Amino acid sequence: MRTLYQYMLCPFSRKVRLVMGEKRLDFDVEQERFWERRDDFMAMNPAGQVPVFVDLNGTVVADSYAICEYLEEAYPERLLLGHGVAHRAEVRRLTAWFDDKFAREVSLPLVFEKTLRRFMRDSGPTNSQAIRQAKAAVNYHLDYISWLIDRRRWLAGDELSLADLAAAAHLSVIDYLGDAPWDKHEVAKDWYMRMKSRPSFRPLLQDRLGGLAPSEHYQLLDF
Amino acid sequence: MRTLYQYMLCPFSRKVRLVMGEKRLDFDVEQERFWERRDDFMAMNPAGQVPVFVDLNGTVVADSYAICEYLEEAYPERLLLGHGVAHRAEVRRLTAWFDDKFAREVSLPLVFEKTLRRFMRDSGPTNSQAIRQAKAAVNYHLDYISWLIDRRRWLAGDELSLADLAAAAHLSVIDYLGDAPWDKHEVAKDWYMRMKSRPSFRPLLQDRLGGLAPSEHYQLLDF
Repeated sequence: MRTLYQYMLCPFSRKVRLVMGEKRLDFDVEQERFWERRDDFMAMNPAGQVPVFVDLNGTVVADSYAICEYLEEAYPERLLLGHGVAHRAEVRRLTAWFDDKFAREVSLPLVFEKTLRRFMRDSGPTNSQAIRQAKAAVNYHLDYISWLIDRRRWLAGDELSLADLAAAAHLSVIDYLGDAPWDKHEVAKDWYMRMKSRPSFRPLLQDRLGGLAPSEHYQLLDF
Repeated sequence: MRTLYQYMLCPFSRKVRLVMGEKRLDFDVEQERFWERRDDFMAMNPAGQVPVFVDLNGTVVADSYAICEYLEEAYPERLLLGHGVAHRAEVRRLTAWFDDKFAREVSLPLVFEKTLRRFMRDSGPTNSQAIRQAKAAVNYHLDYISWLIDRRRWLAGDELSLADLAAAAHLSVIDYLGDAPWDKHEVAKDWYMRMKSRPSFRPLLQDRLGGLAPSEHYQLLDF
């Protein structure tokens, strides 16, 4: 069976799960406590990060960018990177927006401060300023999603693409943590409801991190 | 003419220049003071980051990941992402290693502390602890390059690939700043000398940032 080594609230792992869900690929999920740097895991990915993917034929792929591009090339049944070089560039620009900018400004600080800090040895006291900054920055990103959705059916154009999956993966994590201010962003919320109702999303809504319950509306399709 | 909007010591901009050099594509370089958030620049890339690329037909591509993948698809004369899905996954894994891990641990802190902090409005005093940590972390990455080059001709296999260009782009920036401890890493140094002697590298060695001279050996092919 295909296997994905992941951390439950890692947005990059979630993006890969959504890609496999959209491509109708079966896979097992293994929870990896990556901060423990397990020998067998480090052998698969010396960077010591999740996600890591192992395909049916044994091919090991580390890093979510490499995994998503690999899945697109190995399983082209339902293309998620778009059609035509200019459109594909737009899909990748927006994917990078969320995987780079949103991750740096919002999702990674919140996941680190609210969950990982407890597990990782190099932890200190919670940085409440980092949490405040991240919770403020999310508004700017939800405004940008609204701006795009006012002009396009999906983030990168008329079709669902990796850009939507990346954005929804990052937002699903902060929605779990109760930090997505949906009430102030109706257009972005409508888009996220569309994402949530997709079959590929259902497994994410079942996720539960031990010791940290999700926000009340996390698994509701109508919230 | 094709145009690349860049910052002189941005490793991601340098990676794109190396890709275009290897593909023998002519282009103009425009220095962009991206922190000033110029209106025309923000219209091209609302993320406000370099590099941004404009192709002959007017296609605008923002983000170095999107640009490099775009160039590979639009100009497939000399492939830099490898051949076959598994090999391409390895090229992308290593490219991500440098663009994500190396950037976060080494090149971005050094560039920020040593150059950008002077320009950007939200600057404070130099963080010497961040500089010390980055200068220590580079050794681990040079060890990893040596480990790979002991097993392969180039970082991702028998052929030069985007992984080499990404790694060399990031290292060229810290070499400019005088923070690459080559003496302790002979194998990695030999690989970097091979990279430096490529025609695609020559324009980078001519770069000079106003007010900050490069290290003494920066432009020497034999150092």
